[in-house]
Amino acid sequence: MTRWEPNAEERLRAAAIELFLERGYENVTVAQIAERAGLTRRTFSRYFADKRDVLFAGSDQLPGALADAMRRVDSTLAPFQAMLQALADVSEMLAERVAEYASQRREVIAASPELQERGHAKFAAVAAGLAAGLRERGADPSAAELFADVGVAIFRRGFDRWAAAPREATLASRIHEAANQLRDAAENISTT
Amino acid sequence: MTRWEPNAEERLRAAAIELFLERGYENVTVAQIAERAGLTRRTFSRYFADKRDVLFAGSDQLPGALADAMRRVDSTLAPFQAMLQALADVSEMLAERVAEYASQRREVIAASPELQERGHAKFAAVAAGLAAGLRERGADPSAAELFADVGVAIFRRGFDRWAAAPREATLASRIHEAANQLRDAAENISTT
Repeated sequence: MTRWEPNAEERLRAAAIELFLERGYENVTVAQIAERAGLTRRTFSRYFADKRDVLFAGSDQLPGALADAMRRVDSTLAPFQAMLQALADVSEMLAERVAEYASQRREVIAASPELQERGHAKFAAVAAGLAAGLRERGADPSAAELFADVGVAIFRRGFDRWAAAPREATLASRIHEAANQLRDAAENISTT
Repeated sequence: MTRWEPNAEERLRAAAIELFLERGYENVTVAQIAERAGLTRRTFSRYFADKRDVLFAGSDQLPGALADAMRRVDSTLAPFQAMLQALADVSEMLAERVAEYASQRREVIAASPELQERGHAKFAAVAAGLAAGLRERGADPSAAELFADVGVAIFRRGFDRWAAAPREATLASRIHEAANQLRDAAENISTT
């Protein structure tokens, strides 16, 4: 009895984001999303585990993808540079997946304390993935944790700037921009 | 009927940390803490709001204290350097308060996912306090967010290193050490 529904995933996502922005993420149900999209809850379940998954699909893979990417980066690069390279590499894949709705997604998250809370946990997992990659490349454990947290800060800020205007620049270039901004600011830290 | 109990706060804190380490934070009740300290629950309530407060007393003031400290820093310093200075200044106050039990406190938190989760929210609040201070000193809003996240990363790593051996170095010098480590790593970020 399963009908094939053209563009079901995109229709569901568009309906979900529309509703999240209208009513607030917390007040939207899966049934309402399916109804708005003109599809069934059953169809929703084929594409997403729950309403949160509409926004974060694939983000569970991010820590592992980053650790993998670090292994592929030129072995002559120092750990910190290798991390930045891996962030830029993985960002291309990520940008393709979310470009269409990045800016609205950002609005939805900014309006929801619950989603921001989940975001913290998600970024802690990303930091752990980066720290693992840094240690594999020879960073001592404490430096690995510091650099990983800084990598997440650069990534988040780059992502935010990109998502505010996804057609104006690539995600990788926004990440690069944030990294350069940090380098310029850190340059004058006194050595004493 | 209130009796004066000598060193009640210290006795309660020591008992709480002992129990947290023995049984895990999640499995300890306020009644057990009071009993171990040889005091009443009522006495506990005079010093702490709940068992979490034993570990985080005063941390709600941290974001505001950091924003205040940034206002006091020499106005010729660039925003990023002013932030580092404020972190070092506030750290002295913080170190005095937690030096006695910093290392055990760290162990308790490392063993509890619940406390780590709360830690994320706490650090997000600290970042917001730093970002406010950075904006006041002229950083543009997006740079302020980036620098604040990096400031938190430096602070956390410095704090962790200090807490592992609180008598070997000051908290301020550990924060400084982490900042220098980051500067050295960031130096080679390509400018292209």
